[in-house]
Amino acid sequence: MLLVPAEASEQVAAGRAAVMVDVLRSATTMATALDAGCREIIPASGIEEARRLADTLGRDHVLLCGEREGRRIEGFDLGNSPLEFLSQTVGDRAVIMTTTNGTPVISQLRQASLVAAAGLVNVSAVYQVLKKSGLDAVVVCAGKLGRFSLEDAIGAGAIADQAASDKYILGDGAKVARMLFRKYRKNLLRILSATEHGAYLLNLGFGDDIAFCASLDRTATVPVLYDGRIISQR
Amino acid sequence: MLLVPAEASEQVAAGRAAVMVDVLRSATTMATALDAGCREIIPASGIEEARRLADTLGRDHVLLCGEREGRRIEGFDLGNSPLEFLSQTVGDRAVIMTTTNGTPVISQLRQASLVAAAGLVNVSAVYQVLKKSGLDAVVVCAGKLGRFSLEDAIGAGAIADQAASDKYILGDGAKVARMLFRKYRKNLLRILSATEHGAYLLNLGFGDDIAFCASLDRTATVPVLYDGRIISQR
Repeated sequence: MLLVPAEASEQVAAGRAAVMVDVLRSATTMATALDAGCREIIPASGIEEARRLADTLGRDHVLLCGEREGRRIEGFDLGNSPLEFLSQTVGDRAVIMTTTNGTPVISQLRQASLVAAAGLVNVSAVYQVLKKSGLDAVVVCAGKLGRFSLEDAIGAGAIADQAASDKYILGDGAKVARMLFRKYRKNLLRILSATEHGAYLLNLGFGDDIAFCASLDRTATVPVLYDGRIISQR
Repeated sequence: MLLVPAEASEQVAAGRAAVMVDVLRSATTMATALDAGCREIIPASGIEEARRLADTLGRDHVLLCGEREGRRIEGFDLGNSPLEFLSQTVGDRAVIMTTTNGTPVISQLRQASLVAAAGLVNVSAVYQVLKKSGLDAVVVCAGKLGRFSLEDAIGAGAIADQAASDKYILGDGAKVARMLFRKYRKNLLRILSATEHGAYLLNLGFGDDIAFCASLDRTATVPVLYDGRIISQR
């Protein structure tokens, strides 16, 4: 269990599973988009890559979504708020997504045999997918611009908590993440609002997003990377 | 406060202070060596660099010390155990030191205007040096091969705890580190022995080192980098 993305370099490999944890908000948004009937999410590391992909696929055939500094990118159809991803908007559509922390980490993990995205909204489902895969798993907190973020450690800790119940042995990072989850599990909304990034989003007016992202196991959908696209696995 | 070294890249700069935290054991060993009268410690990132430096300075005029995988390096005079650094051995001598995690991180921080090394043995002294400097400070856990280690987070948390008492505002990493220190401060020896690296050292027979490294504020010595050499500041 890796508390910042840079720890991942030597841990991610074919034959292993890798989970990107981004509670606020990209993993939550991916799961929500797929629940709303979105056909596939194509992760792009940068804005220009996203625009190029949209041109290649035909700008009218895809939705461009994502954020920089929490805000919708200019000219994009949607931002990174899970509440925007309604079935009338994204149902049966392909979505190209680029976010500050989540999509670059997904790209960093792509050598793994199974790549999944976890928020608090789907931790139990993610854990079940990992367990069924039988693969050694590396759980990577997306963090904020390469730095530690508390909400992702709590999300990773929710997975560690289930792993500990199944008698997996936890390293230092997983132990701390689990401790954080257990400390805050009864007050997820309050602690998410008090994290560095939560406070920032709150200030931008995204309070409803935080409440949505704090609802543990709201969905059984696991966004998984398949052939460069993120699709739904349940 | 950075829980793994990779977070440091954009944070460390001239005009700032930077602290390398390596509880088990390099920072503890540096403070202990200086207390024993060692004149200066020359940090080397690699074994070959250390040997080259020793040849340049004259092999008989310096002591070579350091570890790989916790063990003394072949042909070196001393390992990385603070208990080896007695005044009859290192008094008035120059020491070249290379360790797996600590000395590379020191090198990574060298652009800062003040670079100090902290273990649990000298946290209060380190905090006082930081405070008196008046500089913005970046505290970097050395970790283990780039990954998070609990004992260094606890050491960083001891610094964060003092900063919080002085009303400094803590980010996510510092808050978590502080929480870990407060949770374990009464049982430092027990928790150090239970960390990944502590358990490894215990297994190598370094139990006495762990007890030594767990003694909070045993010294007022702060190892600081000055012109490429680590000397004592009190």
